[in-house]
Amino acid sequence: MAGIKFEIHEEIGILSDSSKGWTKELNIISWNGNTPKFDLRDWSPNHEKMGKGITLTNEELKALKNLLNEMNL
Amino acid sequence: MAGIKFEIHEEIGILSDSSKGWTKELNIISWNGNTPKFDLRDWSPNHEKMGKGITLTNEELKALKNLLNEMNL
Repeated sequence: MAGIKFEIHEEIGILSDSSKGWTKELNIISWNGNTPKFDLRDWSPNHEKMGKGITLTNEELKALKNLLNEMNL
Repeated sequence: MAGIKFEIHEEIGILSDSSKGWTKELNIISWNGNTPKFDLRDWSPNHEKMGKGITLTNEELKALKNLLNEMNL
């Protein structure tokens, strides 16, 4: 992950904790100085290491919310 | 992505379309023959190529739903 700069603008919430201390989080993050986006990703304690994840626009997050509200979870 | 086998069990919905025909989708996918999980990921047309994504358990998706419903989107 060398060379990737990021700044966490807002920590929205934690979806889960793993036994190793990693957390799956929804945040608002600016990657490499770009416009901040929603970001769903696994993180090691204190955000020292990042795992796999996906960025989402506001519209995509709205669409996801609508889908989830239609499901029986 | 050579060597990764996957089977899409259910196509839940599409979050967005890109100009190049890629879609961001929520599906239920079995990776390498394992138990199917929720999967949020970018896909090329007809699921020929996969982009970055993240898998989620049922509990994680519930937590995400609760977070989204608390936000002003």
